[in-house]
Amino acid sequence: MTDLTGLGKRLKAASHTLALSGAGQRNAALTAAARLLRERRAEVIAANGEDVRAAREAGVREAMIDRLRLDEGRIESMASAVEDIVRLEDPVGVMDGGRTLENGVRMYQTRVPFGVVGMICEARPNVTVDAAALCLKSANACMLRGSKEALRSNRALCAVLHAALKESGLPEDCVGLVEDTSREGAKAMMTLEGYLDLLIPRGGAGLIRAVVREATVPVIETGAGVCHTYVDAKADVEMSVRILENAKTSRPSVCNACETVLVHKDIAPVFLPKAKAALDKHNVEWRGCGRTREILPGVLPAAEEDYATEYNDYILNARVVDSLEEAAAHIARFSTGHSECIVTESYPAAMRFTALVDAAAVYVNASTRFTDGGVFGLGAEIGISTQKLHVRGPMGLRELTAQKYLLFGEGQIRE
Amino acid sequence: MTDLTGLGKRLKAASHTLALSGAGQRNAALTAAARLLRERRAEVIAANGEDVRAAREAGVREAMIDRLRLDEGRIESMASAVEDIVRLEDPVGVMDGGRTLENGVRMYQTRVPFGVVGMICEARPNVTVDAAALCLKSANACMLRGSKEALRSNRALCAVLHAALKESGLPEDCVGLVEDTSREGAKAMMTLEGYLDLLIPRGGAGLIRAVVREATVPVIETGAGVCHTYVDAKADVEMSVRILENAKTSRPSVCNACETVLVHKDIAPVFLPKAKAALDKHNVEWRGCGRTREILPGVLPAAEEDYATEYNDYILNARVVDSLEEAAAHIARFSTGHSECIVTESYPAAMRFTALVDAAAVYVNASTRFTDGGVFGLGAEIGISTQKLHVRGPMGLRELTAQKYLLFGEGQIRE
Repeated sequence: MTDLTGLGKRLKAASHTLALSGAGQRNAALTAAARLLRERRAEVIAANGEDVRAAREAGVREAMIDRLRLDEGRIESMASAVEDIVRLEDPVGVMDGGRTLENGVRMYQTRVPFGVVGMICEARPNVTVDAAALCLKSANACMLRGSKEALRSNRALCAVLHAALKESGLPEDCVGLVEDTSREGAKAMMTLEGYLDLLIPRGGAGLIRAVVREATVPVIETGAGVCHTYVDAKADVEMSVRILENAKTSRPSVCNACETVLVHKDIAPVFLPKAKAALDKHNVEWRGCGRTREILPGVLPAAEEDYATEYNDYILNARVVDSLEEAAAHIARFSTGHSECIVTESYPAAMRFTALVDAAAVYVNASTRFTDGGVFGLGAEIGISTQKLHVRGPMGLRELTAQKYLLFGEGQIRE
Repeated sequence: MTDLTGLGKRLKAASHTLALSGAGQRNAALTAAARLLRERRAEVIAANGEDVRAAREAGVREAMIDRLRLDEGRIESMASAVEDIVRLEDPVGVMDGGRTLENGVRMYQTRVPFGVVGMICEARPNVTVDAAALCLKSANACMLRGSKEALRSNRALCAVLHAALKESGLPEDCVGLVEDTSREGAKAMMTLEGYLDLLIPRGGAGLIRAVVREATVPVIETGAGVCHTYVDAKADVEMSVRILENAKTSRPSVCNACETVLVHKDIAPVFLPKAKAALDKHNVEWRGCGRTREILPGVLPAAEEDYATEYNDYILNARVVDSLEEAAAHIARFSTGHSECIVTESYPAAMRFTALVDAAAVYVNASTRFTDGGVFGLGAEIGISTQKLHVRGPMGLRELTAQKYLLFGEGQIRE
């Protein structure tokens, strides 16, 4: 078993310094990080080049290598993303409420950092800097674990972050890299009780599943999106086609993209051919239920497991349903609780769908693609939570803080 | 392995009905429950009598039997506690915020029930009714598992709750009792993924530890309280004695009671003898560090594990420290993050302690005994959360709900 206790202790100690730090100092460190990323880009690109070479030799497929690769443009984007974070409001010390108790004790309910936040990030090295910057902004120390493929890049990026921290008088241990990128390294992080106050996996369904099953430290699940668009009997057909086309094809690789269209039987004969024609322009592959295939001959049959799959690709499941209730039941069974949409002109149907469907974001007559921290006005986004505890939907800086009650008395005791 | 899937499915179905129910209907069910508890008290007391007899035959100690026993007075308290819950504000549908997005989509951030909430309750049957009532008020279905000793009592209480639900037109499956009170039954609940949206253990440290380690469903940890009172160099000695006496002896069995007093070395020679004299009146047993025992000869030595123990009894650890920082470090090591107190007349010491100490509630010059949903103004309390995710400190009805975004559009798509 990998021993992360030493790293955990150092980060915990640094988190105490961060808890006493001011936003000015943390912003100075972030500003320095952006500057140093630009200044030391050659060093970062060289380290990344070694990662890319090794990945290519190991036979990693080109799409993955493209995600791994850093160039001047990507480093500039990273640096300016850090500067965007500097400009956001400080989430620490925000007062959620308070009152003077009957006994005269003054009670303040305030937001405080979690302490040490762990992030398990797959593949893309830009996530490393983003995660560290969001943690630092919210006064959390950050334990980062990237993929094996990105280890040299992550080391170089962490060296830059350490230099920025040092320059601004904060401990280098505000950010720590887990060098063990094995399965055991991840497991050690998931069970680092007493040192890790929160763990956020950022990656594929397999990673998130493993973390939920194995972690004994607190976790926020993010990013799993099996999203549905339900075209109601009373839907505007053109609007339905437009929304489905957008939800499926504007960016299929993201978690708020649509995977399955559910269609009321009364509208299916009109809607499905038009939808098929619109999506054919994007070469979307359809997988349909029996009734879909009667209307759209040539469509492949959808298997049970297809309905549970987040394709992240130009593939769409289609199922004809008898009622809104059947659509809601399908969603209850296969949804990951991310974003769900009804297209309808019926007010009762809209009200019933939004009450029945249990997800982070439920839409009437708008594309699920809007579920995003930026669009929702959170400023930054660490991920989209699909769990119900703590935060649901886009997770911003506020959600990287916890509550704390402060009570100021003058000797009060409880009778 | 116990199979709770059937029960889980029935409760999940009932939770969908609850999600569409109005507060009026849920309050009617609670009002009926209170009335039926009174009407059917003989039946409940008879079932409880069998539990008590069996427990006595099994050699269960008298203190436990007293917690198990129900009489007319206790049933009346239960019924009126349910009526108190009826009078609280409905937490469902409360709007946390919202805005109209740039694209014209109207976004509402609202509170919704979790779905199915599991409660593992030890010993006291009154907790059964309280848990079910709080869940029902917040439109959650409730899966209850009590102790083996209370099974007959819990069956009788659930029969009353079922009758009340039926009377008010809600499904009986809004409340379900787990009949398997074995270790396996608990384990099956902790891993009932897909059916249990939240699990709240209400019991001793062993239960909570097991749930945190073994649960794969979302959990809120409650009730572990190793709380400290730190008497600073600049403390008012009389106030310090009064606060410590209150925190230790006003109700030692609860989680906000003090377990360890930390004393600055400069004030220890004056404070400790006075504190000892005050606590002697309550027959408090002291366990002290070396320096404490120099000042208070005859006090037993405190072992390392004593500092980590929640005594729930008239026992107190005492430790002399060189500085506020040493006190904070002791707290960081042994605290369960519940309630911590500094007694001081020094403004900088108060500010530093409240910033450094990481707990749900941090007090200056007031007894830790105030950490309580009622005192903090929450109305009802399901428990005191000692975790940082979702809720920290007293957990009320609001914390039995989750967030949900509703978005109303007119055909908007993302460019």
